[in-house]
Amino acid sequence: MLLVGHGSKLPYNKELIETTARLIAEKTGDYIIKPGFMSLNTPTVEEQLEAFRREDIEMLVVVPLFLAKGVHINQDIPELLGLPKGERCGTFQLNGKAVPLVYANPIGSDPLLAELMLKNASDAIAELKP
Amino acid sequence: MLLVGHGSKLPYNKELIETTARLIAEKTGDYIIKPGFMSLNTPTVEEQLEAFRREDIEMLVVVPLFLAKGVHINQDIPELLGLPKGERCGTFQLNGKAVPLVYANPIGSDPLLAELMLKNASDAIAELKP
Repeated sequence: MLLVGHGSKLPYNKELIETTARLIAEKTGDYIIKPGFMSLNTPTVEEQLEAFRREDIEMLVVVPLFLAKGVHINQDIPELLGLPKGERCGTFQLNGKAVPLVYANPIGSDPLLAELMLKNASDAIAELKP
Repeated sequence: MLLVGHGSKLPYNKELIETTARLIAEKTGDYIIKPGFMSLNTPTVEEQLEAFRREDIEMLVVVPLFLAKGVHINQDIPELLGLPKGERCGTFQLNGKAVPLVYANPIGSDPLLAELMLKNASDAIAELKP
């Protein structure tokens, strides 16, 4: 799994992507997880694609840690992945073989996101009432 | 709960914030939930603050639907809320009374976010294997 972050001059986006990659790795052993950044931070998406070519994987799933669709999701990241615009599946060339590449959706509206917002609200209220 | 979105020229951010507000409302009756946008979309944060002044609430919790901290979270939104920089709690003037205002954290790194990324990965892989 390539977990793609936007990248930022401030440290917070990089921190979020790297910590989330670690949390995913703690939850499951199903993936080799590498965080990669679209811009401003390293390792870049391109660098991590190269790193994946040296792994023995049977599929590459690219998960963008972005809130929602937009130019980055619809255009910039597919370009980095070599996917034609609008395509969600392609192939990824490893050392001597081709494996499927799938491009997942960004966060989007999801009951888990609603739950997370409720949790953040409760945490803030709990701080107020010691 | 004021659920704050960034706002965007494209429709996706507005859609995300409004749908998430609905999903939160479906999960709990504890809050009156209004989505408000920092820029580019309406209703604005300011408009929704005015709308909350006409509600009979005992607290206002402001939850930013942003990925991580940054200038918007640390500076722009606190300004809109009348919070001094770095403060997480203030007061909100309703019609004739003052109630606490609390400012929650953005999404941040959280096991729920890791779970959501895994779900998006699985969904993308499932599309590949019909």
